[in-house]
Amino acid sequence: MSSEGDFIALMRNLAHTTAARGLMDDAAVLDIAALSDGSLVLTSDTLVEGVHFLETDPADSVGWKLAAVNLSDLAAKGARPVGCLMNYALSGDAIWDAEFAKGLSTALTRYDMALLGGDTVAMPTGAPRSMTLTAIGRVAAGASVPSRSGAQAGDVLYVTGPVGDAGAGLKLLAAGQNEPQALVDAYRRPQPRLDAGFALAPHAHAMMDISDGLLIDAQRMAQASGVAIIVNHVPISAPYRALDGDSQSALIEAACAGDDYQLLIAWPADQPLPPDSDLIRIGRVGAGAGLALEIGGRPVALPERLGWQHGDTPSQAPTN
Amino acid sequence: MSSEGDFIALMRNLAHTTAARGLMDDAAVLDIAALSDGSLVLTSDTLVEGVHFLETDPADSVGWKLAAVNLSDLAAKGARPVGCLMNYALSGDAIWDAEFAKGLSTALTRYDMALLGGDTVAMPTGAPRSMTLTAIGRVAAGASVPSRSGAQAGDVLYVTGPVGDAGAGLKLLAAGQNEPQALVDAYRRPQPRLDAGFALAPHAHAMMDISDGLLIDAQRMAQASGVAIIVNHVPISAPYRALDGDSQSALIEAACAGDDYQLLIAWPADQPLPPDSDLIRIGRVGAGAGLALEIGGRPVALPERLGWQHGDTPSQAPTN
Repeated sequence: MSSEGDFIALMRNLAHTTAARGLMDDAAVLDIAALSDGSLVLTSDTLVEGVHFLETDPADSVGWKLAAVNLSDLAAKGARPVGCLMNYALSGDAIWDAEFAKGLSTALTRYDMALLGGDTVAMPTGAPRSMTLTAIGRVAAGASVPSRSGAQAGDVLYVTGPVGDAGAGLKLLAAGQNEPQALVDAYRRPQPRLDAGFALAPHAHAMMDISDGLLIDAQRMAQASGVAIIVNHVPISAPYRALDGDSQSALIEAACAGDDYQLLIAWPADQPLPPDSDLIRIGRVGAGAGLALEIGGRPVALPERLGWQHGDTPSQAPTN
Repeated sequence: MSSEGDFIALMRNLAHTTAARGLMDDAAVLDIAALSDGSLVLTSDTLVEGVHFLETDPADSVGWKLAAVNLSDLAAKGARPVGCLMNYALSGDAIWDAEFAKGLSTALTRYDMALLGGDTVAMPTGAPRSMTLTAIGRVAAGASVPSRSGAQAGDVLYVTGPVGDAGAGLKLLAAGQNEPQALVDAYRRPQPRLDAGFALAPHAHAMMDISDGLLIDAQRMAQASGVAIIVNHVPISAPYRALDGDSQSALIEAACAGDDYQLLIAWPADQPLPPDSDLIRIGRVGAGAGLALEIGGRPVALPERLGWQHGDTPSQAPTN
């Protein structure tokens, strides 16, 4: 597979909807009536080698991740995937491109998202790999599409799972280690929480995915909503605890680590949770403004870096 | 303007629709009912420095071009712009980024396309600039969305304007010249033919934009449609003629030059043209397969390179 044509042939296998026009046309054409009423949810994320993934990450994991990070944004809005467009810079390495396509294909198939179109370009030699995916999701008529700005004083704060695993995985990889697998996989193969998002969206006051770190994203929710958010529990996984322990600094590190792709939810206190929702209560929303952290029932000073900020490279990932 | 936040503030000015959620959320939310019936047209193009634009091109012209090349794909489908998402790699040069934003803004305003969302990333130092735009357009219920595969034997072949200007502009710039302005502007500031596309779409059998060169794109239309296409006239502009003359080789060079962004149309012979459509008749569609070129009424051998192919760099632009 050495040419753009070969890569596009691989992509064509993913374009299993008439809207894609077999990737043979200038554009995809989506029948609005077939979507019925409701809303389209549109999101787009770019991955850059050396910034969002490591040069040493397997190509198929990068393909998976490109789909997963965008699906995570759909999950945060309670949307079901409709399709996507991908912009891919050919790497000049046909095997890498084919492995990338395989990982992308696995994710698109797993989450039932068709490829509708996109663009393939050649980058100058030596340029870092980069790729963009634009995902389109759908929300039924009358369904709420929670934003990050709807949190209200009195809400309970939940996450859909532990935090810090992906950050720990990145740290292991940076140190040349590939184990434990669970932590490495958390970094390389994030699992978008589509079912959870779909179940929670109807009643969530605010919802967003934690892509940059629990604390920084909670702060963004507080700011967008004009409320105070108090995080009083940092949930970590058993593999994380086994590796880093559960000291205050280990918990803060987990709360500042990026790439978790869990959902953060401000939930009305008097609203029962959906069955089997398996959420972890991590705090509350109060009147006022700003973010506060409590560990073991006591206030803790916020670290200088609350999480991942654009412009960071993996080696600058927050470590305390 | 040195940070991502400042750049996003510039972008926020372009997000003048509720669907964009002020660029404050994870995703844009488009009300399907407000679109009424019909079709959504989705397209996405990436520009890479050194491939799709020159390092020396003014930043605002790159912003313009990013919007224009995507709008040209909407034009080819007869669609009206709805909105777009942009993925931008910050260049590390705040003045460049601001100038880019200005050019993008000019184009989005000119063609009434709101910014709905996107992503901003930092590239490693020294990486070429690159940026992606995903455009969403709309076609009314019942309206035809011409593809490139609908050309029929007997159709007349038209273009919306002369070809070769952008290629001549690129050649001038590569030689360190900035004049004539009309040719340089054709390369740097393509004009998407939205009104023409909208007027022609209802009856065009096939329509596509000429982004890679008249001959290569005509060949693609012939192939997709399973017909033969005969190009028997290569229309060039007065500035092109003044610079390069109208010898056979000058005409072939114009027909192989990329970046023109005129529309190529296969039109039913018995269908009157829309009023004021100002089209140039350049050939016909026949039974059979393949592309043929006639100049001055005589068959001419096709050049080895019919136009721009992915993987080319500007210095490899076809020159004969």
